[in-house]
This record gives sequence, structure tokens and C-alpha cells, in this order.
Amino acid sequence: MTESVITPRSVDYSRWYLDVLREAELTEDSPVRGSMIIKPYGYAIWEAVQRELDRRFKATGHQNAYFPLFIPMSFLEKEAKHVEGFSPELAIVTIGGGKQLEEPLAVRPTSETIIGHAFSRWVKSYRDLPLLINQWANVVRWELRTRPFLRTTEFLWQEGHTAHATQDDALDETLRMLDIYAEVAEGVAAIPVIKGQKSENERFAGAVATYAIEAMMGNGWALQAGTSHYLGENFSRVFNIQYLDVQNEQHYVHTTSWGVSTRFVGAVIMAHGDDRGLRLPPALAPIQVVIVPIWRKNEERQDVLAYARRVRDDLAAAEIRVHLDERDGLTPGFKFNDWELRGVPLRLEVGPRDVRDNCVVVARRHLPGKEGKTFGIPSEGLAARVPGLLREVHDGLYQQALAFRQANTREGIDDVAAFKKHAEEAGGFIKVHWAGSNEDELRLKEETKLTLRCFPVSEQGGPAGRCFLTGQLTNRVAVFSRAF
Amino acid sequence: MTESVITPRSVDYSRWYLDVLREAELTEDSPVRGSMIIKPYGYAIWEAVQRELDRRFKATGHQNAYFPLFIPMSFLEKEAKHVEGFSPELAIVTIGGGKQLEEPLAVRPTSETIIGHAFSRWVKSYRDLPLLINQWANVVRWELRTRPFLRTTEFLWQEGHTAHATQDDALDETLRMLDIYAEVAEGVAAIPVIKGQKSENERFAGAVATYAIEAMMGNGWALQAGTSHYLGENFSRVFNIQYLDVQNEQHYVHTTSWGVSTRFVGAVIMAHGDDRGLRLPPALAPIQVVIVPIWRKNEERQDVLAYARRVRDDLAAAEIRVHLDERDGLTPGFKFNDWELRGVPLRLEVGPRDVRDNCVVVARRHLPGKEGKTFGIPSEGLAARVPGLLREVHDGLYQQALAFRQANTREGIDDVAAFKKHAEEAGGFIKVHWAGSNEDELRLKEETKLTLRCFPVSEQGGPAGRCFLTGQLTNRVAVFSRAF
Repeated sequence: MTESVITPRSVDYSRWYLDVLREAELTEDSPVRGSMIIKPYGYAIWEAVQRELDRRFKATGHQNAYFPLFIPMSFLEKEAKHVEGFSPELAIVTIGGGKQLEEPLAVRPTSETIIGHAFSRWVKSYRDLPLLINQWANVVRWELRTRPFLRTTEFLWQEGHTAHATQDDALDETLRMLDIYAEVAEGVAAIPVIKGQKSENERFAGAVATYAIEAMMGNGWALQAGTSHYLGENFSRVFNIQYLDVQNEQHYVHTTSWGVSTRFVGAVIMAHGDDRGLRLPPALAPIQVVIVPIWRKNEERQDVLAYARRVRDDLAAAEIRVHLDERDGLTPGFKFNDWELRGVPLRLEVGPRDVRDNCVVVARRHLPGKEGKTFGIPSEGLAARVPGLLREVHDGLYQQALAFRQANTREGIDDVAAFKKHAEEAGGFIKVHWAGSNEDELRLKEETKLTLRCFPVSEQGGPAGRCFLTGQLTNRVAVFSRAF
Repeated sequence: MTESVITPRSVDYSRWYLDVLREAELTEDSPVRGSMIIKPYGYAIWEAVQRELDRRFKATGHQNAYFPLFIPMSFLEKEAKHVEGFSPELAIVTIGGGKQLEEPLAVRPTSETIIGHAFSRWVKSYRDLPLLINQWANVVRWELRTRPFLRTTEFLWQEGHTAHATQDDALDETLRMLDIYAEVAEGVAAIPVIKGQKSENERFAGAVATYAIEAMMGNGWALQAGTSHYLGENFSRVFNIQYLDVQNEQHYVHTTSWGVSTRFVGAVIMAHGDDRGLRLPPALAPIQVVIVPIWRKNEERQDVLAYARRVRDDLAAAEIRVHLDERDGLTPGFKFNDWELRGVPLRLEVGPRDVRDNCVVVARRHLPGKEGKTFGIPSEGLAARVPGLLREVHDGLYQQALAFRQANTREGIDDVAAFKKHAEEAGGFIKVHWAGSNEDELRLKEETKLTLRCFPVSEQGGPAGRCFLTGQLTNRVAVFSRAF
């Protein structure tokens, strides 16, 4: 089943993605244009992402709150760039309770404005700062071309909104949250990311500076998996968020906002998936260990199942997310494929010989076939050993993704022709010195479909090099790539 | 501060409620008509409700999923009673991405229709049943008169949606979830509830039977704190949700739906609050234990704070939600009032004498003044003792609420005049035998403002009694009350 219904990535990456979503039962198209249904298995991955992020937000002093879904149009119009960026994408409620509304309401595309309005009441003095708020919510952006998880009309996300006394404090917060996003991407989702600043063209509408984590997907394209914005005084001025300092003087606060959405689940699928289906990082896998019982003769069935249940109960007692596949009428081979498709990190195989020897066979999802198998692992003490095995899968997935990114990142290109040739023939990331203008960047995008993904934070301010486009000397380093 | 700004309940219960919301920083009005802002302290209570419910849903085999916010109008129109009930309350999106939509989209008031449409694809055979789904989401109902938590245009909730092979299975599920709601109300929120069936007039639009948990608030009115509906084949027929049974015959499934919303937080506030403010059940309290350090002379300050921090760290290490109030420039008395207002179940007072004796003073929020205080509790082993003290507060709140309900429940009324007199003069619940018609019920509501809250599940089928209105003999027992 599994191999026949999933289009190989090399044949059609986009088809592969949609096939995996369908066969692993992650999402389903809905009757509402551009809105997806997130099925239980897909939602469980998102819940794990939520859990990991929420814990870190709270540990860094943020509190959750909830603000209205509907935003008066007049609010969105207050910040000029903000409304310019978002107004083409709005869904607008014009009728409520059977009556035409006097002021139409936008369904929130993001909440800077309505939260800014609240902050103007919540902040009075320096004692109220920093104000560190997060919201888990759905947002709506009327996208023309949608793709489940990556770009949908409605999506789920968290949006952090904070206010600070000074620019330094706000910039620290912006980078602190970027670090948390990178930590979750790498330490939880096993996806290596580049932390970088976006170019002016790609900046959030209304931000002074936008930072993002950029990851390489299995086809060499980039995916922006989380963003963190320093908003300066742009929103505090239009919503009048001021505080009295120790000397009793009024100042505008500096605000930030930052978000990770269900798009992150798309990143997990595309960073790790292979032609057999999903490969899930253990921390996000709804099922971390699946047990497949194997028997030939009917008299073996009871013993194998009883033994497999004991193994399951041991692991469950150790808070490992384990599932025993007791389905009748399916071959072990079918079950292997089925759980590989669903990306379960570890498979335990249990047959009559394993029962006799008090052992199990372990197969790791990140290594194919025999390579990933270990025979004769004692069931005694297995629960204590599983976290190490899961860590092995996590590390394996991370190292594979990192090696893939390194193999598909080109440096040392020093003229436009070479840039275009590489873009067309090879793909992946291109890392270059960049001194071009906003217009240069847009023209390059038109000509090559590559966008300036970011200026990697860790690589700025190094030795100067020559910009491949303008020939100017610069120490700004940029990464270009096709992107989702 | 606290006592002066909160209107006593006896003066104006409605003002008291709004004062508590404001002073305890639970909610705030928003610029969007009828939508509230849930502030961090209020949202933390909701998060605790979510945690407690979600755990129980999963333990009973339910899986979370997510369905679109927008519902095509044609979907809502499929079930006649459903659209009749909800269409006056809809918010409708008519513009998307700058264009008039061909088919307007309703912002979901509830999701039976869009989930029913999905179930028609997900259910094929008896093997797919029961299908047990839950969704955490926001919903919108255009209410005319709103009140924070109790009735808002937008609110947060969970909505369970399940499909079953038979009526019996679906009814079992309906009552199982009602039981879980009652368990959370009583065992977690310390609110005694009556599990009962709603009258036809009060039934969910599209349900065959609606069950609810009804609680008595501090002014004697009822509040419906959770509902569970048996939907029969009403939705499976219009959305064509059918399964093949073992004999390969097609049947319509029987569906249920059930929900608890942010209204539940309103129930917690009104079931327990007193004239000093909130009184929170320990399982839902964002802060379970607050420590107030007390000193007169400045040289005592360091010792007291160092000791208080040790106590705090001990409790925090035992996963107790503890907060040390280190604010300068506020008197202990001010802090006592402030934390009482916020409903913290336990207050620990720590002064120089306590430091010397290695003790703390404990004050329980459910007992006023000296009555709730215990002096000289050793700080050694305190963390192990706190769960018992919290249990004491939980039990105390529950018993007080139960005694209040019993004292304000009138039985034995056997004619209309007495019913009306009691309704006008005393309030509270009236428990009677009832054989009236739907029209009788509506007329009674108009004349007395009392509604038939429910037919308590545990009291049906007992010895017959005479209906106070019709004089007929019946064994149906009903509870009437004013309600929020």
C-alpha cells in the first residue's frame, strides 16, 4: 500500500507532500476555500509543538491572554504600512445578528492593533514593563494559492506581543524569542535552522526589523518556520502606549511581536519525510514507539500478544507514547509500511523467538531496512533504554538534515551569471556577499525566483567580500533560495 | 482598597460580578461589541479548566482535531431546526481578499454541520465507530445582551462530536460526557451541580435530547455550566453519515455533541465569590499559595525575606503554584486584601517570630478572619502538608456551596400561587412535580421569569406527585429557577 500511493519526491515533490498528508491522515481539504481540516494525527503533532513552545514562553515570564477575533477596520488603518500589508488579505464581517454592521469587522490577520489598544490601558508606569503577553489563536489571511499547513486561509498560531521601556530591551526580547524558536526547531523538531534578519522587502508590515528562522526542506527550498519582529514605536505611537519613567517623564514603549504557526508542522513533514512517508522527531511524534506482533501459527498468537502487551504496559508506565498494533488480518509487512508512512520513530517487532528469548527487535525510522535494525534487545530494562533510542533517532534526523543542507548550500559565487546558472541547475541555498538595493533584490527574484531569505545573524560583520551583483565590497552575508 | 471598590453582593449582585472581574483583573471590555478581552489571570483559570477536561477526554478515547472557522451558509441550512436556532445569531463574512464572496460564510456558532460533512467521509464501516472527536475553538454568536464569561459574542469552548452505530451507544456517550462535566464541576471546581435533561423548549437546536449540568450561583440563580446532546440521526441524515454493518447493510450513525465554554469560569466566580472578591478552587487557581512577608524594622526584612524565599522554593519544588509577594511599600494588610480579592486559596504569613520558630501562619480563603487561620505550622515538611490544606479549601468551598443550594432549594410547593409567591420573594431553586405543556412552561417563564432548568436525572421515575400547575399526577420532577 504505502509505496504505491506516495509519489516519489524526485518525481514530483509537491505531489509527494500532498500524498503524505492524505495517506498519513494529517489533513483534509474542507468545503471552505483554502481552509484545511486538521485530522487527529496532524493535530496531535501541533499539540506537541504547542506544549513545547508554551512551556518555554512561561519559563521566560510570558503570560497567555485572549483578545477578540474581530478587529474594527479603523484599528487596522491606524498604522499605514500595517494596513497596506494586510488589507488585500482580509476576510470582512459585514452582517451581525441579521443586520448590516455600521463598522465592518476584519477577522484578525494578526493582533498588533487590538492588543496595542489594550496595552495603552495596561501600561502606565515603568513598573508595568516589560509587559509579556502571548496568545494562542486562529487567524485568517485570504490567500490565493493555498497548501495545507504551509499557506492556508485560516491557520492556528501563537502570537507573542510585548512592550518594553527601551529599544535595547525590546531588541533583546526579539532575539530571545528567535532563540527559543531555534531551540524548538533544532532541539525538539530536529530541524537545523538559520537565524537571520529579513531584508526590508520581506519585513513584517509595520516592523522596524524582522528576524526569522529559515530551514531547508527536502527539495532544497527554504521555509520560514517562525518570525520575531522588533516594532519600535510604530504601534505605540498610533495606539498611544506610553509610560512614566522614574523621573516622571512620559515615553512611548518599544514593542515586539513573534509567531509560530501550524506551518511549523509543514516544516517537520518536509524537512524529514522520505519516499516511504513521514519521519517524525520523537518529541513531536504522537506515537513514539509502535509494537508489531508477528506470528505464523495460530497457537503462537496468544503468547506473542501477551508478551507484546507486557512490553507496551512497561513503556506506557514510563510515559513513553507507545501503541501496540493488534489489528487482525494484516501482515506484519503491511503494518511495517503503515507505521513507517506515519513516521513513528521506533518500531519494536515481537515474534515467537523474541518471546522465548525475552527480547525484541528494534527498527529506527531514520535508517532504512537492516541498517536501522537491532536484534535481540532484552525486554528487561527496555523502558529505561527507549529514551536513548529515541534520542538516537532525533540526532540521526538532525544530522541527516544538516548534512543535506550543507550539501545543498553553495558559497563562493562571485558573478550574476554563475548565480543564475546555479539557481537554475542546482537549487538549494546560495550564500553570498550582498550590497544590492531593494530593487536589485526584487529584480533578482523575478529573474530567478530566488528570494533573499535572510542575513544570517552569526555571519554578519565578518571580513568583507565582493557583492556578486554590484561588485561592491561589503561584510553583509545573505542567503538566497527558492522558498515555500 | 479591596473592600471599598467591590459592591457588596447584597446591594447589587450584577455590579459585584463586574467589580470582581475588573479588580481581580480577569477580563476587560474590548472595542468590539460584546467581545471581551480575557486578561492573564482570567485566562490562567480557563487554561486550568482546559487541562482538566482535555485529560479526561483523552482518557476516554477522544482525539482532538480542528475544523474551519467559516461555515458555508448552505451547510447551516441543511438541518431545519439548527438553522432556525442559530441564524438570528450569526456573524457573516461577505468579503474576502477584497472581493464580494459568491456564497457568504458564517463564522461558526457551533460545528455540527462542518464536522458532520467530514464524518460522512470518515465513516464507512462499523469498524470506524465509535468516532470520538473533540475540538478546542472560538465560536461566535451575536448576542444582544452580553456579560463577560456568561454571554459574549465570541467565546472559547471545546465541542465534542461523536458518531456511533446505535442509539444506545450514542446515549451512553451523551451521559458519559455529562458525568465528566459533573466530575470536573464538583471534583475540580468545587461546584455542586444537578445533572438533568432539558425541556423541549430549552433543547439545543437540532438535538433529540439535551442534558446539562446546572449550578446555583451566589444570588440563587441557576447557571448551565455544560451541555451534552444526543442528536439522533438528525445530522447523519442531512449529511449522509452512513456505515456498513457486519451484514453489509447501510445505516445512519447516531451522533452526539457536548460542550463546556469560558462560561464555566463565570460559574466559578459566582458560585464561590464573596464580598471580598474571588474564592478560587485550588485545582483551578493560577496561584494556590501566596506568601506574605511581614516585618516592622528594617533589620528584620532580610531575615524574613530569606526565610520566605526558602519556603517558596520548597513549595515550588513540590509543584505547588506558589507566589511570594515581595512588593515594597505596601502594608501586609493591603496585601492580604489584594490576594483575598484574587481568590488565592491559601495565604502563608511569615514574620520575625515565625522565622525564629521555623513556622508559618496559614490562612484559608474559604473561612473568614481568625476562623481560617492556623498559627505555628512548622515550615519543615510544609510542602507535604499543603496538598491536604488545599483539599480542605476545596472541600470547604464545595460544602458551603452545597449548603447554600440546599438552603435555597424549595420543595413541596403544590399550587401556582405559592410558586409565584416563592419565586418573587425568595428566589433560589424550586423543585416540583411537573406535567405542564411547552406552552405552560413558556407562560410561566413570562409571568415569573423562572425557567425550567432541567429534569434531574437522579430524581425521575420516583413516586408520583401532583403537578403544581396542572394538578395531574406525574413522576417527572423539574427544577425551576431564574437563570443567567
